[in-house]
Amino acid sequence: MHKKFLLAALEQARIGQGHCAPNPCVGAVAVQNGTIIAQASHRCAGTPHAEQLLLTQIPPKMPGVSLYISLEPCNHWGRTPPCVDAIINHGVEEVVFAYLDPNPVVAKNNSSEKLRAHGIKVTHYPVDEITEFYKSYSYWTVTKRPRVTVKIAQTLNGKIGRSVGERVILSNTLCEEFTHQMRAAADVILTTAKTVSLDNPKMNVRLGQEKQAKPVAIIDRQLSLDQQSIIFSTAAHCHVYHCNEREVSYPNSTLHFMPMKNGVMDLDAVISHLGGLGYHDVWVEAGGTLFSALHQERLVHRTYLYIVPSILEHDAISAYQQSGIFDRTHTISWHAMGDNMIACLDWQED
Amino acid sequence: MHKKFLLAALEQARIGQGHCAPNPCVGAVAVQNGTIIAQASHRCAGTPHAEQLLLTQIPPKMPGVSLYISLEPCNHWGRTPPCVDAIINHGVEEVVFAYLDPNPVVAKNNSSEKLRAHGIKVTHYPVDEITEFYKSYSYWTVTKRPRVTVKIAQTLNGKIGRSVGERVILSNTLCEEFTHQMRAAADVILTTAKTVSLDNPKMNVRLGQEKQAKPVAIIDRQLSLDQQSIIFSTAAHCHVYHCNEREVSYPNSTLHFMPMKNGVMDLDAVISHLGGLGYHDVWVEAGGTLFSALHQERLVHRTYLYIVPSILEHDAISAYQQSGIFDRTHTISWHAMGDNMIACLDWQED
Repeated sequence: MHKKFLLAALEQARIGQGHCAPNPCVGAVAVQNGTIIAQASHRCAGTPHAEQLLLTQIPPKMPGVSLYISLEPCNHWGRTPPCVDAIINHGVEEVVFAYLDPNPVVAKNNSSEKLRAHGIKVTHYPVDEITEFYKSYSYWTVTKRPRVTVKIAQTLNGKIGRSVGERVILSNTLCEEFTHQMRAAADVILTTAKTVSLDNPKMNVRLGQEKQAKPVAIIDRQLSLDQQSIIFSTAAHCHVYHCNEREVSYPNSTLHFMPMKNGVMDLDAVISHLGGLGYHDVWVEAGGTLFSALHQERLVHRTYLYIVPSILEHDAISAYQQSGIFDRTHTISWHAMGDNMIACLDWQED
Repeated sequence: MHKKFLLAALEQARIGQGHCAPNPCVGAVAVQNGTIIAQASHRCAGTPHAEQLLLTQIPPKMPGVSLYISLEPCNHWGRTPPCVDAIINHGVEEVVFAYLDPNPVVAKNNSSEKLRAHGIKVTHYPVDEITEFYKSYSYWTVTKRPRVTVKIAQTLNGKIGRSVGERVILSNTLCEEFTHQMRAAADVILTTAKTVSLDNPKMNVRLGQEKQAKPVAIIDRQLSLDQQSIIFSTAAHCHVYHCNEREVSYPNSTLHFMPMKNGVMDLDAVISHLGGLGYHDVWVEAGGTLFSALHQERLVHRTYLYIVPSILEHDAISAYQQSGIFDRTHTISWHAMGDNMIACLDWQED
């Protein structure tokens, strides 16, 4: 039964995905006599934790109540008071959590020990889906760098478009929907000034009736963005990375001056900076140049190739602008999307 | 119950696949009291039909026997006597068959009518799997041309090898096994002198302990094949297509002089000639030139792309040597083969 209720907590945690960074996304359910009687999720950094929201729905000292939480509850003061104290004060009998918080502050304060000292039964019950869910939080907590996921839509011969300036919509609507789901789950979307100028993309989330603005990072070495680009109004906020000394201001944006490396912007520094901003998950949508460069610099954790069953001319633009960029150990999984196929490549850490 | 026994007959029919041309592959089972009491298949052109082989296993006038046959039984003299007469003489009570023979000789003689005239119950019961199975026989019967299936193994950027002369094994062992299954099911394998000279392939079937020689057709415009090529001993027989007037002889081979069209060998004439030899199913394994040319000439019915998750340099050899060759209506299905993916494209007839 532990797994079932922890997966219900995971479903709650997913509600906050893409909104909680730098916090982890947490979900929790309260169970009495084998039935879920309340559920809650952490919705957004700075707002109450899932555990706190959950307890408000349960009368204090209610007998036989167990809390199932996706992540180990915190035992320190952050922007909100410690959850462990709230759980103790509320008179809960049992706590089951799936993932041990890798945050050293949480680890040091040993939440489980404190709960047990107050007579609460505590079980750490790992669940694969939840371990996977906290992969980026865990990676960021340890390295202060985000996990980077890149997507590109390509033909059977690796082409992404005919010529600069001409937009070719390659992938089908199932892939489009997948893109919007991935945008929703990410903390920030990374693109380039070139993509912005060619496609004038919104880079927001559009799923059914839902529209959601996301933080967008734009690589704009020369500060060449057009102030009229729609992205400045559709993004939650823009982080513009550049290597140009001149004074410019863009709407709804923060500019970040970046160092150069081998004549181009230091992408490793950009990714690192995004980690410093508290983002755990970076979702990259751009053209073949950034796609190739990120792989060349071994900065990518996961690659989604949307393979479209058509071909373009030999001299069309390739996704693969440098050779050897895929010569790294990886696993691959395949996901059919109607007449398109998504290949998911997970790159092994060096 | 009809479907179950007809599928059992189909399993028998598959045993002859790749050996029966120009005949159709036929399988049959005899059923009494809901149980299969005998089964048989047509093994090879010139040998007895499945129905004849089946009847030898059943005592004459045995009560309550039904014959399930994948194809309508024949009612004409070919290399063997008509099956309909044998069925009548044997005193069978019921015949169920799945596919109506498109051969006008069979159609004209109306087997069902003759069987019914002798008091035998006859049911034509179509089954999708069997209709699919007879696709190439049906196509060949109507057009006297074979169905053409082409495979190629490619990287994510559509490359098939580094440079002429260097062999790059791209696809994995699951794909290799699939290739041998496809070779086994085909009537003839089509390749080129270039592939023979580069790879010195055996082009036979190797599945487990089984080795099977197949007819092989080789496009060898200049008659440049090396007589020492292993294919001359591993093929059941070679058909060498050329445009060269000089006198040459190859071991185990028949030479066919072909016309030129636009400076290259007329591939349409080659495919047509293979149909004339009685082959229903042509399986093509060669390089990017033949792959592209067959698609360009719209001679392909089905294409299997083995997609291997690696990339090769921009100047490596491409599968797609002409643009527009995939600009034809098609359906696609995807078949994961471990870390490789097989895309199956079925081209709509013009």
